[in-house]
Amino acid sequence: MMLPELRETVSRLHAELTRYGLVAWTAGNISGRAPGGDLFVIKPSGVSYDELTPESMVVCDLDGELVEGDHSPSSDTAAHAYTYRHMPEVNGVVHTHSTYASAWAARGEAIPCVLTAMADEFGGEIPVGPFALIGGDDIGKGIVATLAGHRSPAVLMQNHGVFTIGDSPKAAVKAAVMCEDVARTVHVARQLGEPLPIAPDDIDRLYDRYQNVYGQRSHL
Amino acid sequence: MMLPELRETVSRLHAELTRYGLVAWTAGNISGRAPGGDLFVIKPSGVSYDELTPESMVVCDLDGELVEGDHSPSSDTAAHAYTYRHMPEVNGVVHTHSTYASAWAARGEAIPCVLTAMADEFGGEIPVGPFALIGGDDIGKGIVATLAGHRSPAVLMQNHGVFTIGDSPKAAVKAAVMCEDVARTVHVARQLGEPLPIAPDDIDRLYDRYQNVYGQRSHL
Amino acid sequence: MMLPELRETVSRLHAELTRYGLVAWTAGNISGRAPGGDLFVIKPSGVSYDELTPESMVVCDLDGELVEGDHSPSSDTAAHAYTYRHMPEVNGVVHTHSTYASAWAARGEAIPCVLTAMADEFGGEIPVGPFALIGGDDIGKGIVATLAGHRSPAVLMQNHGVFTIGDSPKAAVKAAVMCEDVARTVHVARQLGEPLPIAPDDIDRLYDRYQNVYGQRSHL
Amino acid sequence: MMLPELRETVSRLHAELTRYGLVAWTAGNISGRAPGGDLFVIKPSGVSYDELTPESMVVCDLDGELVEGDHSPSSDTAAHAYTYRHMPEVNGVVHTHSTYASAWAARGEAIPCVLTAMADEFGGEIPVGPFALIGGDDIGKGIVATLAGHRSPAVLMQNHGVFTIGDSPKAAVKAAVMCEDVARTVHVARQLGEPLPIAPDDIDRLYDRYQNVYGQRSHL
Repeated sequence: MMLPELRETVSRLHAELTRYGLVAWTAGNISGRAPGGDLFVIKPSGVSYDELTPESMVVCDLDGELVEGDHSPSSDTAAHAYTYRHMPEVNGVVHTHSTYASAWAARGEAIPCVLTAMADEFGGEIPVGPFALIGGDDIGKGIVATLAGHRSPAVLMQNHGVFTIGDSPKAAVKAAVMCEDVARTVHVARQLGEPLPIAPDDIDRLYDRYQNVYGQRSHL
Repeated sequence: MMLPELRETVSRLHAELTRYGLVAWTAGNISGRAPGGDLFVIKPSGVSYDELTPESMVVCDLDGELVEGDHSPSSDTAAHAYTYRHMPEVNGVVHTHSTYASAWAARGEAIPCVLTAMADEFGGEIPVGPFALIGGDDIGKGIVATLAGHRSPAVLMQNHGVFTIGDSPKAAVKAAVMCEDVARTVHVARQLGEPLPIAPDDIDRLYDRYQNVYGQRSHL
Repeated sequence: MMLPELRETVSRLHAELTRYGLVAWTAGNISGRAPGGDLFVIKPSGVSYDELTPESMVVCDLDGELVEGDHSPSSDTAAHAYTYRHMPEVNGVVHTHSTYASAWAARGEAIPCVLTAMADEFGGEIPVGPFALIGGDDIGKGIVATLAGHRSPAVLMQNHGVFTIGDSPKAAVKAAVMCEDVARTVHVARQLGEPLPIAPDDIDRLYDRYQNVYGQRSHL
Repeated sequence: MMLPELRETVSRLHAELTRYGLVAWTAGNISGRAPGGDLFVIKPSGVSYDELTPESMVVCDLDGELVEGDHSPSSDTAAHAYTYRHMPEVNGVVHTHSTYASAWAARGEAIPCVLTAMADEFGGEIPVGPFALIGGDDIGKGIVATLAGHRSPAVLMQNHGVFTIGDSPKAAVKAAVMCEDVARTVHVARQLGEPLPIAPDDIDRLYDRYQNVYGQRSHL
């Protein structure tokens, strides 16, 4: 069996999606790019989170074709594959329909950067990508094109949910957790009035400091 | 004891109702139709979720009369029985008062289809059935009549809660989980503005693809 | 040690308050009246829920004076004692600051009966009692006077929280769980519009049926 | 290894932050001042809550400089250190981005005292401190200056989150838990109208009684 360590990592990280309440039933999925760069490990389709094991993970190439595995790959595999093909610095991708992020996505509204934690992690607003149907490269194209214009490792896909990226599967999972956390807090803040803006210069200072302190590169 | 496997399945599935927070105290119930079609297994009335066992499940006929069991059947048994009598393709029924679905039901308002996950699972809006009193066939009639006009496997009963159907008890539980999930997300989206509509053609495309990929037939 | 069985019951029931998220830190308390009627068992003051044991429960008389126990009784003991003195049919009392019930209480607004589950359990609106300071009989008087005019086993005390009663400690805990459940659902319903009313006759029919089916008497 | 008991206490208390849902990923931190007063124990930076042990805690002096530990101290260490330097009666400090408290902070709005539990614990409103960048003493100065004018052991830092203090680490954790609890309840109350005010005299009576009953001094 190929890639035993990455299978283990990707399988185990799915527990963070349930721990933080980001997923219901079998929705949501995580992938990780293999060393070498031309394969990735991803969740199988329709398997419940309780039953995920390193062995049940599947391996795909960058066209999203199944290379190894007893199950079908996640129905979102094409979007993961497109992202890996076009963003060589990305080694992890996460997709969820987490409640608050998806609510912003349903309105097609970016999440404004009004929290210092959001400046730290996202370096500005969390942007919205286009409405796109599943079944081809449209979702992947929307992810890559939208992220190109932002420092955010998260993108809200209109009427759909959220995709996050990272230089590791764990970094992408962290981005998914923090995206829902700030999506919820900014939503709650907005329910009773307008949050105060943070000056763009201060957002830059917070982002630069955080990325250096934590040793993370832009987007990852 | 009849139907040991179905008793085990129906008993165990109730853990999903508590895991996803769809029920409080002893509210909520699941049933499953037996092979052969003229009996079903259902939760006993007023037993706490911690104490449910395969043995405590009860067996009823399609008139809702107790056939086997030490406890009384769920007080919602008549609605389950009516549904099985009039929808031969249904093999599982779930009833909950889950918070967000019941809130839409309290306003008598259908949940609009503004999420791709909702197009996938429900094929359009989640409709509202009539106000009906417990104690006869009124609730069952409302369920069957309302579902007849929709692809949704879930129906919001006005001022009451939600009923879902499936071609298996597990499919009906999945519908109950996803119904609350989209009820909550669309509620949250609506709190700060109007969600963007999804074009009816796109809803059809998403629904058709999802039902084929997952091998599910309409309504189930 | 007196009343070992009741100590065990009251101690164990506190786990339901944490399970349903009705309490934070050490807020919230449950009591149960002893057979014979002139003593009750109640939570000790300031002890965390993890550390509650049958032995740490305290016994008080109907004036709220400590009869047995190593800890001080709950700071809400006077309100429990007043309720037992004036409502001989009550054998259990619960107090929480659960979020949604307390939010209605902070506005001094009764929860309207717009859910069939609320008609079942509460027989109408959940009423609001007066603002009252702790330290005398004012809270107890407010509870008893307000419940006298309603079928509800729950009363929202203005700017404070909720008290529930039952013919057993478990029944009072059920009322506290269901009170928060309907407080939340009706709140959520109201956020996006007006819930549809249920006709008073239908509320009566639902309440009468539920109390008979479950063998419970009015208020308990 | 210095301070084994305090390391154990501070490490263990972090479980309360996850239990009450006050933190996501590695955000949030607790510190405790050592006997003698010139050192404190604090969470290491970027370590997940599951992996915290007494041994992984770090020891700093009151300038925030690392004295003992294998990890870097929390990135919020300077704010903890400033608070200990300027508030000699404080022996515990907690920082979180808990959702509802942070939402009030994002609007720069103090939480009004409309719950008796809030009068008990906070003696009035929970105030808002200034917007301040991390990396120097600005956050610490904002905390100390804002708390000086209030009885509240909690301060909302604008666009950021909440800091709480106590005469022990446990007391500061309790303040963080209760702060989020009242932040949420008052938020929910405000969603459907205006909460009723509590008269200032009654707030004083409630606060005085609670602080005496529980043997706590002002601010701690």
